[in-house]
Amino acid sequence: MNKPIIGITMGDPAGIGPEVAAKALASADIYKISRPLIFGDAKIIADAAKIANIDFSINPVEKISAAKFTVGTIDVFDLKNVDLEKIEFGQISAMAGNASFEAILKVIELALEKKLDATVTGPINKESINLAGHHFPGHTEIYARYTNTQDFAMLLIYENLRVIHVSTHVPLKRACELVKKDRIVKVIQLLNNACIKFGIESPRIGVAGLNPHASDGGLFGSEERDEILPAIKQAKASGFNVEGPVPPDILFPMAHGGYFDGCVAMYHDQGHIPFKLMGFDWDKEKQSMGSVRGVNITVGLPIIRTSVDHGTAFEIAGKGIANEESLIYAIEYAVKMVRSKN
Amino acid sequence: MNKPIIGITMGDPAGIGPEVAAKALASADIYKISRPLIFGDAKIIADAAKIANIDFSINPVEKISAAKFTVGTIDVFDLKNVDLEKIEFGQISAMAGNASFEAILKVIELALEKKLDATVTGPINKESINLAGHHFPGHTEIYARYTNTQDFAMLLIYENLRVIHVSTHVPLKRACELVKKDRIVKVIQLLNNACIKFGIESPRIGVAGLNPHASDGGLFGSEERDEILPAIKQAKASGFNVEGPVPPDILFPMAHGGYFDGCVAMYHDQGHIPFKLMGFDWDKEKQSMGSVRGVNITVGLPIIRTSVDHGTAFEIAGKGIANEESLIYAIEYAVKMVRSKN
Repeated sequence: MNKPIIGITMGDPAGIGPEVAAKALASADIYKISRPLIFGDAKIIADAAKIANIDFSINPVEKISAAKFTVGTIDVFDLKNVDLEKIEFGQISAMAGNASFEAILKVIELALEKKLDATVTGPINKESINLAGHHFPGHTEIYARYTNTQDFAMLLIYENLRVIHVSTHVPLKRACELVKKDRIVKVIQLLNNACIKFGIESPRIGVAGLNPHASDGGLFGSEERDEILPAIKQAKASGFNVEGPVPPDILFPMAHGGYFDGCVAMYHDQGHIPFKLMGFDWDKEKQSMGSVRGVNITVGLPIIRTSVDHGTAFEIAGKGIANEESLIYAIEYAVKMVRSKN
Repeated sequence: MNKPIIGITMGDPAGIGPEVAAKALASADIYKISRPLIFGDAKIIADAAKIANIDFSINPVEKISAAKFTVGTIDVFDLKNVDLEKIEFGQISAMAGNASFEAILKVIELALEKKLDATVTGPINKESINLAGHHFPGHTEIYARYTNTQDFAMLLIYENLRVIHVSTHVPLKRACELVKKDRIVKVIQLLNNACIKFGIESPRIGVAGLNPHASDGGLFGSEERDEILPAIKQAKASGFNVEGPVPPDILFPMAHGGYFDGCVAMYHDQGHIPFKLMGFDWDKEKQSMGSVRGVNITVGLPIIRTSVDHGTAFEIAGKGIANEESLIYAIEYAVKMVRSKN
């Protein structure tokens, strides 16, 4: 029984999180590599399984040792914190926000106690989280706070595109101010370490500029000269295989073509736009994302955290059409990280 | 003889512009739809043709009526402004910058006089242009100044991805400040008009947010609430088919999947990253872009201007391996725009 135990949060109960969690745990393949356990409200998961036409039995547990981890049963660490009657799909509410938040705290707690080998998170709604009085811009920041981590970053992976972010959930204006040499050096280190863990020796890292054309020699902005170039020089001096600043619109075609093993993005959308453009496919007929592939990893934490790379998709919640690919991908990556750690 | 006369600037003589111009004019297909004429230095073009192994004869002319416009001859409106001996591939210089600039002014002048039906521009180096004393961040701004145009915008097109930009060559911090309601309404109008010219009836337009997740209901930034949403409301009230603000990392997968006919990007890289990721292919073996497809159009001008969507590619200039696809695409689009105007 050395398959890793993976704690999977159900995410916001008004979104597609419970549905994709139920669908992922109805996949026999997942049990071949892991012992998966959903954290959330068992009634919500039972409802989601019904919506997804899954006739597995739901096994609510109050401790990990009571989980069965077998195909045919969906184990739920039951937090009993949602009133099913009061939840409306697609609606923001403090109850939904609080339930999402409590599941996250529980997996962090158990992972720190080494009772979980890794954690995987479903999509939350930030407005609901805030409405419930938990003022965090996202998972990454919640994990950092509750694991007491200073230097962390968001890494997105889809196929050979590995993108780490200097900043994430802040206004773009503020993100420009967060482009600082020390932080850039730190994320280069975090990316390099992560790539090595994934089996890439001496990863080649491309660092994006902040401004158009990476400022074209200083014509449009000074951050390349003042912060990014000095960071690259320092990282090179420390032995990292780093290039840049590369014009942001050139870095990603090069990385996609295999030139770079990893990319440093200066702000949320600089990394998220190429990542989702490659990993997400819009289904014109269904009027929703037909495919969502890719994984979101917080690096720098003392515990393992991977995540779906999509949101709550309120517009299709409760319809049974949500796609579980990204969650399966996130579980597989969590397992890979446990293996590389051991 | 009603094929449109297209003035094509050779771009920076130290870059790949002259080479891709010579290659494009060695394509018989171009002569089936247009009368193409290169603007630049005839000796540079002769040299570029040699590098590209093209044995067409070069025909230097001083007026348009002297051009032959036949397959087998490359007509060059000879500006005699480069000393071939002094040009070094890949090097910034005032001479190269000045030559690039003069070619642009000449095609603008002749297009305003209706002696050219459309203009197509090769890639310039902004540092060289500046070194020559011409302080413009790019072609778009040169065209605006010399055609006395106030309301213009950069539109990128690759297949079904049509992206217009609220701002272009400014530092990202400044771009955040340029996200203003009136400007957004204006670019929605420009995009709508352009799409109609390309044959799309009642184009469906998606407007990106500025901040991550389009600010997630105001959690990360206020531009969505204060500027973007009011612009969308006003555009809707004027009868445009507009949606948004859409999270920037979701807009482009949706557009690529066919949901939107056109996209409004809030800043240069928000539009350029998805566009180049789809249109550019990195060739790992050659260590250069193997394919560069797509066209860059300035909309709102009294004359037609299309352009390659790549830069001078100094690192491969003079090697004969540059790809002319984007220039051919730009000429074809220019012809399409002449036809739709007539």
